[in-house]
Amino acid sequence: MNGQAVKVVKVEGEFVWHAHENADELFLVRSGELRVEFREREDVTLAAGELLVVPRGVAHRPVADAEVEILLFEPSGTTNTGDVNSELTQEGTERVE
Amino acid sequence: MNGQAVKVVKVEGEFVWHAHENADELFLVRSGELRVEFREREDVTLAAGELLVVPRGVAHRPVADAEVEILLFEPSGTTNTGDVNSELTQEGTERVE
Repeated sequence: MNGQAVKVVKVEGEFVWHAHENADELFLVRSGELRVEFREREDVTLAAGELLVVPRGVAHRPVADAEVEILLFEPSGTTNTGDVNSELTQEGTERVE
Repeated sequence: MNGQAVKVVKVEGEFVWHAHENADELFLVRSGELRVEFREREDVTLAAGELLVVPRGVAHRPVADAEVEILLFEPSGTTNTGDVNSELTQEGTERVE
């Protein structure tokens, strides 16, 4: 929609540190608790129903101590690991109509 | 973010029929129940946690029989009543950082 993608994701554990050079990224927690770690500011812990926008270019690492279900809003084509190539990098997403 | 706005809105009652010529619009219900009525397809009723994307150009009317809290996700500058000028038309939104 409007060149943006809405992604439904379940995650658990530590993601990789990364940044998106050209994409602001919105995290909205649906269930569970997500901690977003930053290098240059305090971490932010999101409970269900809470959201956070990580501005483009800002290094961050999402961490879920237990499984968490989140929505991501970001430009279509945004790579999940941003500027980092990792075994966690995903090439595509499944489209749900 | 990315030229898009995230709006937190509380609504109750019937909104006006309208369409957004150049904006897809995402509704995400946070609490309560929202019915989105359409002229050319069946209405959609959204419970808390559910979301719907109304494609650009599609006439729709949101109706909340009781107060509902929703998130809207749409291009910045989108007018709430789209192509219709109404007493419900809002010129701006309060920005929350």
